[in-house]
Amino acid sequence: MNQDQLKEQVGREAVKFVEDGMYLGLGTGSTVRYMVDALGERVANEHLNLVCVATSERTAQQAAELGITVRNLDDVDHLDLTIDGADEIDDNFQGIKGGGAAHLWEKIVAINSTKNMWIVDESKMVHKLGQFPLPLEVIPFGSTHVLKKLTDMGLHPTFRMTETGHVMTDSENYVIDLHLNEIDHPHELAAQLDGIVGVVEHGLFLDMVNTVIVGRSDGPEVLRARD
Amino acid sequence: MNQDQLKEQVGREAVKFVEDGMYLGLGTGSTVRYMVDALGERVANEHLNLVCVATSERTAQQAAELGITVRNLDDVDHLDLTIDGADEIDDNFQGIKGGGAAHLWEKIVAINSTKNMWIVDESKMVHKLGQFPLPLEVIPFGSTHVLKKLTDMGLHPTFRMTETGHVMTDSENYVIDLHLNEIDHPHELAAQLDGIVGVVEHGLFLDMVNTVIVGRSDGPEVLRARD
Repeated sequence: MNQDQLKEQVGREAVKFVEDGMYLGLGTGSTVRYMVDALGERVANEHLNLVCVATSERTAQQAAELGITVRNLDDVDHLDLTIDGADEIDDNFQGIKGGGAAHLWEKIVAINSTKNMWIVDESKMVHKLGQFPLPLEVIPFGSTHVLKKLTDMGLHPTFRMTETGHVMTDSENYVIDLHLNEIDHPHELAAQLDGIVGVVEHGLFLDMVNTVIVGRSDGPEVLRARD
Repeated sequence: MNQDQLKEQVGREAVKFVEDGMYLGLGTGSTVRYMVDALGERVANEHLNLVCVATSERTAQQAAELGITVRNLDDVDHLDLTIDGADEIDDNFQGIKGGGAAHLWEKIVAINSTKNMWIVDESKMVHKLGQFPLPLEVIPFGSTHVLKKLTDMGLHPTFRMTETGHVMTDSENYVIDLHLNEIDHPHELAAQLDGIVGVVEHGLFLDMVNTVIVGRSDGPEVLRARD
């Protein structure tokens, strides 16, 4: 199976955990796209009553087009389950997210969700975080000084750019990627980054996920990360 | 002297510290407005060569109209001195800022400035912080959940509103004010607030100011806060 087939596999597996009446958070990214497609099929076939909250404009649009009820996070008082992708998951089920520049909204949805599930193909499972560049969302005003500070801290930052300029998040901020290779102490790094003025949020998702579904050639593996 | 006269007094006193060739940060607020007027006079009369960075669109506009050179923070590599107001300053020269909803940009400018000066009328000098509501800048997405969390933490939050809706910052975020009355441990509170997802920045400015000028009826008092 190629990577796309593994992504589709976990997307289909994940929606088996969705129950009628749930308030559901929907992540962002290529794996989530397959999951939302599969969710749309279940909603259409089984007439499920779901209320969904999306972590990005693009997921919201996809879900709405499939006939899934989408509400604003601020119009619901809780979420039962959020299903999202991840860019890396380590042996302790700590994660890096933000490859799709949606990690601020993803984190806001995740912390308002009773349970969190991540769906990934097997290439995302790593022993130690850091091979994948760690994304930061930063306020544009003064961001070159944030970049310099991060450089001085030895964190190897680069702005995420397109041909026409800065990648912009849904909150109209910039993205900086930290090229770290190995993150020895994720909690320590998270606290350091939380304290930097101008950094809105980092892509370390710590102690957050409950269930991970890994796509493998011999079928999806469901891992219990934490209660 | 009334409060406006005290504000004008410290505004005029502050610009005496400005030297030709300086890279200067300009704060935001009613006291700063007097200071920028006085600065404009010095620039016009003495042909001072200054490069200024503003902490808000409104200060940038005022300065430009007075013929002061205004640049973007991201186009200068450092600031020598930033002159700003404050809403409260305690006995240890810790401050609350953000009454003007500009505290995010103010803090970004302050931390990129070699020296910081605050100018206030005497009513802003307090023994303990907290009588003035502590402002937070928050991401609109999910902000009702941030408000609920802050309520649960016992921090008495309210959204800052106008008749037509939310007060918006220059970074297009909302403002939440914490009605605390007394802040016993400002550093502890700052660390707590730094860790809340969705809070972009709080109005506690700790260990940051070097010089405070206090407007008093018998003349401005210049206080050395820290080197």
